[in-house]
Amino acid sequence: MGKIKVGIAGAAGYTGCELIRLLEMHSAAELCWLMTGETNRGKSVADVFPQLRGVREDVFLPLDPAGAEKVDLVFMAMPHGLAAALIPPFRESGARVIDLSADCRLKDPAVYRHWYDKEHDAPELLREAVYGLPELYRRHLAGAGLVANPGCYPTVSILCLAPLLAEGRVRLDTIVIDAKSGVSGAGRGLTLGTHYAECNEDFLAYKPARHRHMPEIEQELSLLAGEAVSICFVPHLVPMTRGMMATVYCRPAAPVQGPALQALYETFFHDEPFVQVLGAGELPRTKAVQGTNRCQMAVRYDPRSDTILVLGVIDNLVKGASGQAVQNMNVVFGFPETEGLRGVGLYP
Amino acid sequence: MGKIKVGIAGAAGYTGCELIRLLEMHSAAELCWLMTGETNRGKSVADVFPQLRGVREDVFLPLDPAGAEKVDLVFMAMPHGLAAALIPPFRESGARVIDLSADCRLKDPAVYRHWYDKEHDAPELLREAVYGLPELYRRHLAGAGLVANPGCYPTVSILCLAPLLAEGRVRLDTIVIDAKSGVSGAGRGLTLGTHYAECNEDFLAYKPARHRHMPEIEQELSLLAGEAVSICFVPHLVPMTRGMMATVYCRPAAPVQGPALQALYETFFHDEPFVQVLGAGELPRTKAVQGTNRCQMAVRYDPRSDTILVLGVIDNLVKGASGQAVQNMNVVFGFPETEGLRGVGLYP
Amino acid sequence: MGKIKVGIAGAAGYTGCELIRLLEMHSAAELCWLMTGETNRGKSVADVFPQLRGVREDVFLPLDPAGAEKVDLVFMAMPHGLAAALIPPFRESGARVIDLSADCRLKDPAVYRHWYDKEHDAPELLREAVYGLPELYRRHLAGAGLVANPGCYPTVSILCLAPLLAEGRVRLDTIVIDAKSGVSGAGRGLTLGTHYAECNEDFLAYKPARHRHMPEIEQELSLLAGEAVSICFVPHLVPMTRGMMATVYCRPAAPVQGPALQALYETFFHDEPFVQVLGAGELPRTKAVQGTNRCQMAVRYDPRSDTILVLGVIDNLVKGASGQAVQNMNVVFGFPETEGLRGVGLYP
Amino acid sequence: MGKIKVGIAGAAGYTGCELIRLLEMHSAAELCWLMTGETNRGKSVADVFPQLRGVREDVFLPLDPAGAEKVDLVFMAMPHGLAAALIPPFRESGARVIDLSADCRLKDPAVYRHWYDKEHDAPELLREAVYGLPELYRRHLAGAGLVANPGCYPTVSILCLAPLLAEGRVRLDTIVIDAKSGVSGAGRGLTLGTHYAECNEDFLAYKPARHRHMPEIEQELSLLAGEAVSICFVPHLVPMTRGMMATVYCRPAAPVQGPALQALYETFFHDEPFVQVLGAGELPRTKAVQGTNRCQMAVRYDPRSDTILVLGVIDNLVKGASGQAVQNMNVVFGFPETEGLRGVGLYP
Repeated sequence: MGKIKVGIAGAAGYTGCELIRLLEMHSAAELCWLMTGETNRGKSVADVFPQLRGVREDVFLPLDPAGAEKVDLVFMAMPHGLAAALIPPFRESGARVIDLSADCRLKDPAVYRHWYDKEHDAPELLREAVYGLPELYRRHLAGAGLVANPGCYPTVSILCLAPLLAEGRVRLDTIVIDAKSGVSGAGRGLTLGTHYAECNEDFLAYKPARHRHMPEIEQELSLLAGEAVSICFVPHLVPMTRGMMATVYCRPAAPVQGPALQALYETFFHDEPFVQVLGAGELPRTKAVQGTNRCQMAVRYDPRSDTILVLGVIDNLVKGASGQAVQNMNVVFGFPETEGLRGVGLYP
Repeated sequence: MGKIKVGIAGAAGYTGCELIRLLEMHSAAELCWLMTGETNRGKSVADVFPQLRGVREDVFLPLDPAGAEKVDLVFMAMPHGLAAALIPPFRESGARVIDLSADCRLKDPAVYRHWYDKEHDAPELLREAVYGLPELYRRHLAGAGLVANPGCYPTVSILCLAPLLAEGRVRLDTIVIDAKSGVSGAGRGLTLGTHYAECNEDFLAYKPARHRHMPEIEQELSLLAGEAVSICFVPHLVPMTRGMMATVYCRPAAPVQGPALQALYETFFHDEPFVQVLGAGELPRTKAVQGTNRCQMAVRYDPRSDTILVLGVIDNLVKGASGQAVQNMNVVFGFPETEGLRGVGLYP
Repeated sequence: MGKIKVGIAGAAGYTGCELIRLLEMHSAAELCWLMTGETNRGKSVADVFPQLRGVREDVFLPLDPAGAEKVDLVFMAMPHGLAAALIPPFRESGARVIDLSADCRLKDPAVYRHWYDKEHDAPELLREAVYGLPELYRRHLAGAGLVANPGCYPTVSILCLAPLLAEGRVRLDTIVIDAKSGVSGAGRGLTLGTHYAECNEDFLAYKPARHRHMPEIEQELSLLAGEAVSICFVPHLVPMTRGMMATVYCRPAAPVQGPALQALYETFFHDEPFVQVLGAGELPRTKAVQGTNRCQMAVRYDPRSDTILVLGVIDNLVKGASGQAVQNMNVVFGFPETEGLRGVGLYP
Repeated sequence: MGKIKVGIAGAAGYTGCELIRLLEMHSAAELCWLMTGETNRGKSVADVFPQLRGVREDVFLPLDPAGAEKVDLVFMAMPHGLAAALIPPFRESGARVIDLSADCRLKDPAVYRHWYDKEHDAPELLREAVYGLPELYRRHLAGAGLVANPGCYPTVSILCLAPLLAEGRVRLDTIVIDAKSGVSGAGRGLTLGTHYAECNEDFLAYKPARHRHMPEIEQELSLLAGEAVSICFVPHLVPMTRGMMATVYCRPAAPVQGPALQALYETFFHDEPFVQVLGAGELPRTKAVQGTNRCQMAVRYDPRSDTILVLGVIDNLVKGASGQAVQNMNVVFGFPETEGLRGVGLYP
């Protein structure tokens, strides 16, 4: 079987270069089209990303959907707002699209307007897009034309809570998600907050209860629960490049014990290739999933405070972005789901 | 007025060297006696701590209370268990003691036994000790003979919650404390978990709902609330040397608004030299308090989840340990409370 | 063709776990035997290395050559001294050996005795071993029974100087190598110098002109030059996990220009799959080779000081240890030299 | 005695905020005038630098020499080029100036033109300025009107070489300086090279043999030697916030032994309050001088390569910039030289 042909729009950012890394190791996809915005267009890929010297010989091309009929799939690795405007022409030329931006994730245009302070440029995309969390939507993703790749915080948060909500085990008004991210999640754009001497040896919370990933998490939790869910979500910035952790707190809907929770999680994720439920004596560490598409998770019940704790980790650039996009590609095109994603994590 | 004479038992650890740093800048205390365990006794202080070359010319002496009558105060900067055995002879010789270990903090010997897996060696110390959080116990600390210096997590956690609990503003069964610490909090002893290549570029939770600082926090929150409080407390390890943050979640006891909370906090800490309540547009960062005895704090109300958020930061080795010990010394001896603690933080 | 069967002696250290990572992705080798010393024997591999959960299901076995006849190759990833004693029984059972320790690298037992303060346990190994730098000894390595895998500093240092020395371009008494290594080079054993709070945010030199890799570098430079070479070698510790850089200074033997040096390097390494000579406008960065077996290099001539500069970077655990060992395995067994080593580097 | 009144031009950068930190602890100077460029003018100092909350209540004022007659001294903490234009009006109003930029350091306008690609705006400043390395120019600095505060690399490099050159101990054409700096040396301006995810876990050389600090070092070494000196200077970037190391290599002019070198260095720096020559068993670490104005140094002779090694460390923002500027202020005004600079270093 021939390989599918793949392009990336917005290839000069961190999710772009992570897509390149993963797709270069993929046996069924040929990455033949790298597009970027004005800053990097025309530059040699290897000049922009030194780790790609000897790997990619091409240059970054302009963001232009003309020619999209030659590819089977385009990954949109662009900022929200810009993606929505470009997706329709790509779709019209016949290419499938996996969108890593936030532009296709929210189903309700009003929610988008509220959180992104603008009208959605192409609200029909919100109806068409399948939310690309394969652990929940695998069947809908097979053959899909447009996939909304989840945000990093939503990925780990929803996976941590899915078994509990799907089974009705928690009081829905008690969910707290305290999340922590490495700095690469902020992208390659320059800001004072990601200037080395500022964020190195620093730890802080940002946008407490105001982050745009919150409505995305709530949307999916509500679908799982069958009713509207509001959460308290506080993200933090960790002085490290990669890695993301969610520490989730909620109260049980009925009396519960640790072993039953453990069994619930092990059963729920039993056949999942990328979710690992750790045993009673282990706790997740971001370093254990560095560079991989895995989510490691532990669940605990604390009887003193009557609280269920779920701890989950991912690599924000892999399962939290580009790796999950490749996983979605595999599901959309019927490739083995782990193809291109079997590399062992870099440790230490 | 002559200076008081001060000793440190356990001076070769991180809280010990931080005490030395602060006391060298103190105008009313003379640090004349540095004691350590077997590993470092007899060694030149400057050989053990290169930043003290040219500052200290002495050697580390054995841990031996003989001679304690020559000093006015001994700081115990030792592991729990060891401190309790040494405090009585120091006290008998007339020296006051500020204990940085956990041995004098819990008022109930049964709670100590439960969490530390042993009988307390000198339970009478638990009755005598004043809990050394000056913001709550300043009057009791003046002239005290034995001070139990709070743990790092309890310091920031209790300060974050004190206004709410003192005023009865929260539902006591809803308190979640998600805490994060730099690696120096684990001390200078060698462990795989603090080996550079292991914890660098890693983020993890440890001892979720099982950390020994939890009963200490609960004790003080219960005293503030006037009834027993159980919390859910999860500490995390941040890949940085210094700094600690607590993100506190709780539900209001009655309808509340952000401005009222802000006013409550500003009033509560109005005269405190080391607690800074940030304004509505600011959030705390650990780097902003690096090397200082300050606690910076922000309070928010999230109406969507009906949750009060309190975010607080300290330097775990200063306000979380040695700086607070010096503050306690100032209160005990009637020195100006900020003496020796006015240095501007190191930034960046 | 069936896969060769491979074992690792000393698999619980960082070079061991890096070998596991690389061999799991190798199409021609089956890793079937993981041996460790007392600390970890009997433990589940996944308990010792969390990134291997779901990858390896086995436990660490004792260090015992019995059974070596079942494998084709054993990687020795042990401390020097211990390796030499174990290699002969492995060899006698018919297994080839690639030794990552320093025990087989020096050809002269007297040099070993001088630098390692002991008699060599099996000096016949020094005669048998082929020095495993494929760029210099590829033909000798094909089919070899015992390979001495180079040290990390020697790998980058020798590669940086090989073109100059092979072509007689430098004054041999002017070579200075200022080298820098990430902390993982010190291994997984606990020391104060690799304790997080000590080496984080610190930079230092260690063993200036006294490091044991110096005679190894001199041996190979002398062979290249055809006469004895003495160098000045100063290693430094960088607060990062992976990565190594050598900054090499030497004086030309005859007048030289930058373009001629550039051409010399490009020609010398023209067919090398893992050495990349950067162009005039580029400089090497350790992050560009992170997780890969590549060496990136730049050469410059400074006319003001009449100095040739060579700057080279590797990942100390890959080209500096385990990746090079896999490359050597490929050469020894006639596999494609890049097999298992084609993964794109992790960036950022 | 009243305090002198002091201003800072360019107070919103890292050397500016370090000056604020140090001057706030100074007993003889009152910092009353903080000026910045357009980005930060009008902003509250505490909003720009969170560690100054509660320390400074003022706002940043425009860069305008009007009013300079009210201050005794202005520190110029601005980029080169901008400083030269502002210094004359400050001087004309009677204020002394300590310039932290490179604009007054080079004595020869032609050298400035060559390295800074422009004509000097006020070449008369080059004649007037005293080079502010107190260890060499203390007598000239007393009472000086204009001080050229040395660069960070020059400070540590010149101090490391001064004893050797002053005493004619080295072959002047053999000097190699391999220097390493923490990232704060690049300032607070945003660049891709100082973006966290780029430079974290990375090590690299930059501007090899082309850095603008090289002619400054050569100027001072030439003055020490009494003849023109050309060096080979290669700076590197270390993934840490603060700290700088120089590893200096040179060949002796006549046979030499380690103890004689040790004695030379101890004698040369015997009375220096901020230079510490380490003993034979010790090596400098940047962490040992973090936050202090000290330079720690070790000297070695390597007989195998006939090379003298000098290893020196400073905090690039203190002895490499703002601390040295305060030291210069002390010398200029006749204050005790260590005033405001006696704080113990932050460790770990």
